[in-house]
Amino acid sequence: MMKIKLYDTTLRDGSQSAAVSFTVDDKLKIARRLSAFGMDYIEGGWPGSNPTDEEFFRRASRIKEIRQRLVAFGSTRYKRNKASDDPNLRALVKSGAPAAAIFGKTWDMHVTRALRTTLDENLKMIADSVAFVLSKGINVIYDAEHFFDGYKANRAYALSTIKRAASAGAFNITLCDTNGGALPDEISRIVADVVEHIKNMPRSSFANGKRPSVGIHTHNDAACGAANALVAVESGATLVQGTINGIGERCGNANLCSIIPALSIKLGFNIGASSAKLKGLTELSRYVDEVINRIPDETQPYVGRNAFAHKGGIHVSAVERHPSTYEHVDPALVGNTRRIVVSELSGKSNVLVKAKELKFNLAQDDSAARSLIENVKKNEAAGYQYEDADGSFALLVLKTMGKYSPFFNLKSYRTIVESDRNGRLVTEATVKLEVGGNLKYTVAEGDGPVNALDKAMHESLEDFYPELKEVSLRDFKVRVINPTSGTAAAVRVLIESADERSSWGTVGVSENLIEASWLALCDALEYKLFKDRQKKI
Amino acid sequence: MMKIKLYDTTLRDGSQSAAVSFTVDDKLKIARRLSAFGMDYIEGGWPGSNPTDEEFFRRASRIKEIRQRLVAFGSTRYKRNKASDDPNLRALVKSGAPAAAIFGKTWDMHVTRALRTTLDENLKMIADSVAFVLSKGINVIYDAEHFFDGYKANRAYALSTIKRAASAGAFNITLCDTNGGALPDEISRIVADVVEHIKNMPRSSFANGKRPSVGIHTHNDAACGAANALVAVESGATLVQGTINGIGERCGNANLCSIIPALSIKLGFNIGASSAKLKGLTELSRYVDEVINRIPDETQPYVGRNAFAHKGGIHVSAVERHPSTYEHVDPALVGNTRRIVVSELSGKSNVLVKAKELKFNLAQDDSAARSLIENVKKNEAAGYQYEDADGSFALLVLKTMGKYSPFFNLKSYRTIVESDRNGRLVTEATVKLEVGGNLKYTVAEGDGPVNALDKAMHESLEDFYPELKEVSLRDFKVRVINPTSGTAAAVRVLIESADERSSWGTVGVSENLIEASWLALCDALEYKLFKDRQKKI
Repeated sequence: MMKIKLYDTTLRDGSQSAAVSFTVDDKLKIARRLSAFGMDYIEGGWPGSNPTDEEFFRRASRIKEIRQRLVAFGSTRYKRNKASDDPNLRALVKSGAPAAAIFGKTWDMHVTRALRTTLDENLKMIADSVAFVLSKGINVIYDAEHFFDGYKANRAYALSTIKRAASAGAFNITLCDTNGGALPDEISRIVADVVEHIKNMPRSSFANGKRPSVGIHTHNDAACGAANALVAVESGATLVQGTINGIGERCGNANLCSIIPALSIKLGFNIGASSAKLKGLTELSRYVDEVINRIPDETQPYVGRNAFAHKGGIHVSAVERHPSTYEHVDPALVGNTRRIVVSELSGKSNVLVKAKELKFNLAQDDSAARSLIENVKKNEAAGYQYEDADGSFALLVLKTMGKYSPFFNLKSYRTIVESDRNGRLVTEATVKLEVGGNLKYTVAEGDGPVNALDKAMHESLEDFYPELKEVSLRDFKVRVINPTSGTAAAVRVLIESADERSSWGTVGVSENLIEASWLALCDALEYKLFKDRQKKI
Repeated sequence: MMKIKLYDTTLRDGSQSAAVSFTVDDKLKIARRLSAFGMDYIEGGWPGSNPTDEEFFRRASRIKEIRQRLVAFGSTRYKRNKASDDPNLRALVKSGAPAAAIFGKTWDMHVTRALRTTLDENLKMIADSVAFVLSKGINVIYDAEHFFDGYKANRAYALSTIKRAASAGAFNITLCDTNGGALPDEISRIVADVVEHIKNMPRSSFANGKRPSVGIHTHNDAACGAANALVAVESGATLVQGTINGIGERCGNANLCSIIPALSIKLGFNIGASSAKLKGLTELSRYVDEVINRIPDETQPYVGRNAFAHKGGIHVSAVERHPSTYEHVDPALVGNTRRIVVSELSGKSNVLVKAKELKFNLAQDDSAARSLIENVKKNEAAGYQYEDADGSFALLVLKTMGKYSPFFNLKSYRTIVESDRNGRLVTEATVKLEVGGNLKYTVAEGDGPVNALDKAMHESLEDFYPELKEVSLRDFKVRVINPTSGTAAAVRVLIESADERSSWGTVGVSENLIEASWLALCDALEYKLFKDRQKKI
């Protein structure tokens, strides 16, 4: 099995994403995780370009497990500088990283028009820069910017740039599809040509006598980021650059969370230490989203919440019997899980499988099973949706089975929002409820009526059920169901709650936004109480 | 240029997405847009499987421009049925669609284990089903389910299934990567093999003497949905199935919004009527998201808001001089625009163009123009968006120009929502305001707090401004802006109002849902009063 090196650039190219802005601490936290996952290289930033990245390298290079994988990024020398005087190259040397990625121009048009220098001077800039950094004991990866566009415009010149970098001693030549527009067929063909060219160079032509490997760096602008990386590896590339969750400028970089499992599980390449860590991939993906405060993409291949979700009735019964029917890999291999979604499209089997997943036992011909399906249908007709509302679904099952006993009885609630135009805004909720014969009457203020209700509920109930302190609201979604009637339309509210161990969704529907929110809130807390007890049984 | 047929299955396979639940009206609205875009085929649903789809076909088949592209979806006959008695096939015939897509089994293991029948009986099921539907004057596409997995398991049998469908008269054989796990290299190789096989069949072997075309249906489970479709076309497929925005089960279907521009712009294929509509692609993408209330994916290739966004300083200056440097295609070709993130230049011309559109005259170097841009930026940073809120934008222009004089002064408002668990729900709003020295204090009940506020406002103001009687609320949308903080997150409310002549949007942002709604409501009524007077001037 050929060894493929994994090169993570989440902290450098990933930070170009419009939605991302890393602190130094964020970067260090992520670097630790990347290192624990076994990435061969962690590109940390561009130390010559900004103070955040400078500080990151100062701190990261003191942490052993990060330092050994650390790569600093920078450009070839400025056209009028000697390499040894170039501030950008000196910053690479000073960074403390054992390796540097130096990017240079491939495309003749860029050399003459953007750099405004000669094609020959560009070749010298590449050679000088690689040689200088290497002379300081730092291993060099050469990133050939715009390689594929440059190759298509002037193949001979594009090949001469990477040969110069190879001769000067770069241990890897990474071909970059910088604007992300290349398609798999051309990537495959061009990578194969480059691999062949480097193989045909005599060993004596390399400064350190070692033949460099070829790497691939792709973007997702044509929706082919991961596919392009994979076909490049099949054409002979042995180093893959990408980011966690595909974050990056515009449409993002090639997504390592999609590439790594394909390399290892589907194509059978050796991905070194990471192959033993593959089960941690879903967690790594969610962790990075958490740090950058990005809502995880539920449809993300392999690691998304819906990556192994099944909705259609036919699919659900088939997947139960033969998982390979609708699952291209075993979700457990990447630390993900199968998920059964309940909806009106689905037949009986979805509802029952879902109930089973939530640890309820219902036989197919049970009268409780029939009532449950009836209730799901009735509620869906009224606007309910249980796809994202496991909590409300579980409570519905309990009620249908006659096994529901309420943890609290609600007597009444009230929310008041009061304001004058000068901005004085008072938001208050009162909740009156009863737990085991004790009446509790609470009032709370909040940022909005739902927040105030949530606080009042917690205040009322935490004396009786201290475990509710663990529950926090993570997401709140509102959907108007029949918007043609304007503000009098029905409203569906979905709430996502979480404790330290898991997260669950609940749903409420009403013409009244507050009532819909309230129903979802009550379900969220009841489900927590139920689920904790269900576990103990 | 080879003609490639576009086959949209947003309404059928797209509806399998965990997050999507279409009403019949939603489906009709989307079908109209797909038809206007020039899709060759619109797969509308599975008429034999549920009442919603049955109703959709009843209504869609009466609309000429939809009917001519309409395809009904269903499976081959059940193993013990005669084709002519099979309820599922009869539903296809009854649907009113001029074409049907019939899916059948390719994979030997599925035939014996899931269908529990013989390999030979499966071939008969395919042939009978295609022939029966064709005999009713309906053109047949044969969808070979799990084709790539089936081919890898038993090539000879997989090929025999599609040959049977071809002989029986299907005009197209679509190869489906049902579980989405295939990679580009194998797709490319297998499609080429199938194309070759069908080419080698004698013309006399086809029931209607016509050689069928080959189609491709892929999913995104391995992050290769669009890439796989593209390499399939390069290997000889001439029909592409996919969905708008790649919605679909699990990780989604192949995204037509990524495939269509690549086929037309990059690979130079003829995509028929759609090639003239390519500039409408971004709008089509946003429209579908709007109908299904999905937050558009900003990083979506070609059509996403960030698909041509530039952040890094180097990129921004380079892209200004040489767009091809960091833009793989011209965004205008797909109706998208370049976006500069965090830049003094951003939006300036947009803002002025928009003000002009609303009949305000602002010169580029005007101090009012500069303040307006500042105010827009400041408000956008707080979560406002003016794309759909012309009413609020016009009021902001007026305020910035110092030309705003309020039609009413708000003193205070209050909303109360009160309930007990037995369902007694009281929703009340009070509004205190002043118009021309007259104080008015009103209370109203409503279906929800926003509806009650709306009623109280109308009651207060209609004595002074009878024209407000013409105003009705048409739509009400709520979006949580930073959902990771749960119910304390900021909320953006967009309201669409209308009178007999026009409709306008207004926006409000607050941590408090009621306050955000209130701000949007006030703007809605003020803009009506302003606009009626602006016309009279």
